Amino acid sequence: MDFRVPFHKFRQEYRFKYLALYHAIKEAIATGTLSQGMKLPSSRDLAELYQISRGSVNKVYDMLVVDGYVDSEVGRGTFVTFQANNERLLEKAETRLKLSNWGEEICRMPLRKQTEEGSPIKVDFRVGRTDYSSFPFNQWNRFMYSEVRNFLTKQHEEAFVVEGHLPLREAIAIHLRRTRGIPASAERIVVCNGSMQVITLLAQLLINQGDPVIVEEPSFTGIKKAITSAGGVPIPTCVDGDGIQVQEWESRLLFVTPSRHFPTGSVLSQDRRRQLLDWAARQGSIIIEDDYDSEFRWGGRPVEPLKALDQEDRVVYVGTFTKTTLPDLRIGYVVLPECLVEPMVRAKQLYEPHPSTIMEQRALAAFMKSGHYERHLRRMKRVYGKKYAMFYRMLQKKIGLLFNFIKSDAGLHIYGSWKGMESEYVRLQSICRQKGVIWEDATTYFMSPSAPAACFGFSHLNEEEMEEGIRLIFEAWESIST
Amino acid sequence: MDFRVPFHKFRQEYRFKYLALYHAIKEAIATGTLSQGMKLPSSRDLAELYQISRGSVNKVYDMLVVDGYVDSEVGRGTFVTFQANNERLLEKAETRLKLSNWGEEICRMPLRKQTEEGSPIKVDFRVGRTDYSSFPFNQWNRFMYSEVRNFLTKQHEEAFVVEGHLPLREAIAIHLRRTRGIPASAERIVVCNGSMQVITLLAQLLINQGDPVIVEEPSFTGIKKAITSAGGVPIPTCVDGDGIQVQEWESRLLFVTPSRHFPTGSVLSQDRRRQLLDWAARQGSIIIEDDYDSEFRWGGRPVEPLKALDQEDRVVYVGTFTKTTLPDLRIGYVVLPECLVEPMVRAKQLYEPHPSTIMEQRALAAFMKSGHYERHLRRMKRVYGKKYAMFYRMLQKKIGLLFNFIKSDAGLHIYGSWKGMESEYVRLQSICRQKGVIWEDATTYFMSPSAPAACFGFSHLNEEEMEEGIRLIFEAWESIST
Repeated sequence: MDFRVPFHKFRQEYRFKYLALYHAIKEAIATGTLSQGMKLPSSRDLAELYQISRGSVNKVYDMLVVDGYVDSEVGRGTFVTFQANNERLLEKAETRLKLSNWGEEICRMPLRKQTEEGSPIKVDFRVGRTDYSSFPFNQWNRFMYSEVRNFLTKQHEEAFVVEGHLPLREAIAIHLRRTRGIPASAERIVVCNGSMQVITLLAQLLINQGDPVIVEEPSFTGIKKAITSAGGVPIPTCVDGDGIQVQEWESRLLFVTPSRHFPTGSVLSQDRRRQLLDWAARQGSIIIEDDYDSEFRWGGRPVEPLKALDQEDRVVYVGTFTKTTLPDLRIGYVVLPECLVEPMVRAKQLYEPHPSTIMEQRALAAFMKSGHYERHLRRMKRVYGKKYAMFYRMLQKKIGLLFNFIKSDAGLHIYGSWKGMESEYVRLQSICRQKGVIWEDATTYFMSPSAPAACFGFSHLNEEEMEEGIRLIFEAWESIST
Repeated sequence: MDFRVPFHKFRQEYRFKYLALYHAIKEAIATGTLSQGMKLPSSRDLAELYQISRGSVNKVYDMLVVDGYVDSEVGRGTFVTFQANNERLLEKAETRLKLSNWGEEICRMPLRKQTEEGSPIKVDFRVGRTDYSSFPFNQWNRFMYSEVRNFLTKQHEEAFVVEGHLPLREAIAIHLRRTRGIPASAERIVVCNGSMQVITLLAQLLINQGDPVIVEEPSFTGIKKAITSAGGVPIPTCVDGDGIQVQEWESRLLFVTPSRHFPTGSVLSQDRRRQLLDWAARQGSIIIEDDYDSEFRWGGRPVEPLKALDQEDRVVYVGTFTKTTLPDLRIGYVVLPECLVEPMVRAKQLYEPHPSTIMEQRALAAFMKSGHYERHLRRMKRVYGKKYAMFYRMLQKKIGLLFNFIKSDAGLHIYGSWKGMESEYVRLQSICRQKGVIWEDATTYFMSPSAPAACFGFSHLNEEEMEEGIRLIFEAWESIST
């Protein structure tokens, strides 16, 4: 029987075991460790546990009944009746703690805002969602069930495969070779828990204190956090309709989203791709290509990833299944230059000597191998393509006067820069929040002061929800402007 | 249709689109990106993708057939027939890469040895295994299946709960209060991917460059790696039969395994617990208590964790389910002082803005709430207790002349220090490897030079396997000593 009270602590104070036990249980109850309603062990079990006579345990229980801490019911056992003041638990002498410089740095970083308190959310235009209703749950669950069943027999051999389930890495390699033109091989792929684990570990592996690291302006907040936490200094570089404006930076590392710039959606032009690779060759730099959601492309010309043009093995390609399958499936991956494979495996191993999502990885490998993944992608391209066209039309028509919406050939959100004054944007945002409509405030993606901007995610919404959301925004705007 | 070849690259070189397409496909095949046996898109799809006439695509395919790169079969499609020299893929100009200091540091660390090539393993005495055959797979799978089914409906709201599934944290709190005497609350618990993620993040949060950090000698290699990678200097401190020998260290951080020292199994005495907490109070230090496998205790007196005695909120308690459930279930947790909760959540969020094992966490919460977990623990205590007694007897009887085995009241391995010369140990180890018997070489757990030692894990083995393994070791020894 597993049951613990601070018996040995009181044993040093009291000559008799039963008194030590009495005080130990009393303290456990008073501090809330044993909480109201919990069943205490039988006197026989407790006697055996602490090597004390059964009669002594009964005496202790009697004393506790008299004190009002417990109650005994014949045939049912002994229960805690005292309601500890739970506040006390948390009111312990507050240890003032000195964090490391790293710890202080990450505590200074802005937190991703949780949905604030307030009226319930009616329409949520934030990004990072997917269309659950179109996911082939039957097929997916079939593979998951079979992996749950296999939990016993097959997995142990893989416990130390830090780089991830081999058949999954092979399936990813085939997928990338065919659909992205990347000459990937399983040996160069490491599977991680979503793309942020990849990005943060890469930052640790490549950045020293004070190193300048080139990022797009605007860009994903997570990348900048990863750079800063590794001691690097993010250097924002303007992005226009052709993607990042290439310069002769003095830097060993650059993060870029060439297929679809986050958040604006512009595509890096062929010329600039060449320039970027030439720059990296001259400087001996590494380019990290975050291909975060370009799977869904419904128009325009097909774009090859930068990695497909990379002759010198200077591009690290980061991909994720989170957007193409389910946000709850935290599986990302990275295609690495050979010299980075071992460092990456060691970095991941430090945090996870055994991979943590092995069951999901196995199910995903089977899902890909069966062809269901490709089929799902084809289907979602149609679904999202239609949603995009409809949503873009609605936005333009109803609130096109408020935002400059950027048309795009791919992706699961629409970017709009605010046309009016900042104060108006802030007011609109706050009224909409009260009405239950929220979106992704893209203003936070800029490092330099910039005009307000917004990302409207649409992948998870149906036509009625889109209409309702836009209607509420328009209504909010009318209440401000009149 | 998603298919990519470096068309745009060649489009800049060639005036005619069909020539660009021809060279793009040829290059993709020659580099192995499109590999032997892969099916190419239909001419109609390819024509649409690259906005080129269908006749031109057919011309390109004809040229590739003539070149011997592809073959067309009427009614089946066009397939790659060329076998690229895959070696070429990996023989790209090797980017010599400058890693960060952190990257270089972790690349200097010793790697956990994979099972080397050689004869197949017959008996594996390494640690970290569990008894799969005793795990209640039916009950467990029931909860897993229901979570797989719920993947759709319930999870999205939790996507950002970095600290882990709330009902799981509540179940852990109740479990710790009752069975370990720790006044835990869900708000102070963060769920992680196994205990190493906890330990590495804590090291980052608490250690600055050059900080001395107290560790037991010997101790778990992972802890020392975490300290070193954060820039700290592990200071080894001797452990005797009463646990770590407390001194007036000048240090802000100490790692300790009080319930069952890793790897020797000694239990920290009540006096030293008091001394350790007093030291921490005087120095304003944090103690990290790694309670890695003390759930299985079959004799001796019940031990309260250090955290249960911690009045000043200076002890961080690290626990794991890996040893009590399945090694493949990478769920660990930490009970934190209040001032460390937010830093820990932020640290984890940097790597995983969404938790990665949410399905497993939900299943585990249900498993605990249903009472199956406690029942399983009770049962395994009996199972492992019997195994321990049997295994200890066997070891003593057969190879007790070779090792000094330390008797222990808990845990899933037996520690033995080598009685003979180091060269003999090394030879024994190597012959046993050839015979297919391996164990955990505990010599690596020491920082200072030390006599050889070994850990023999037994949790996953049955009587016959234990006997066979020990017999083979004895046989190997005879072949050396005669």
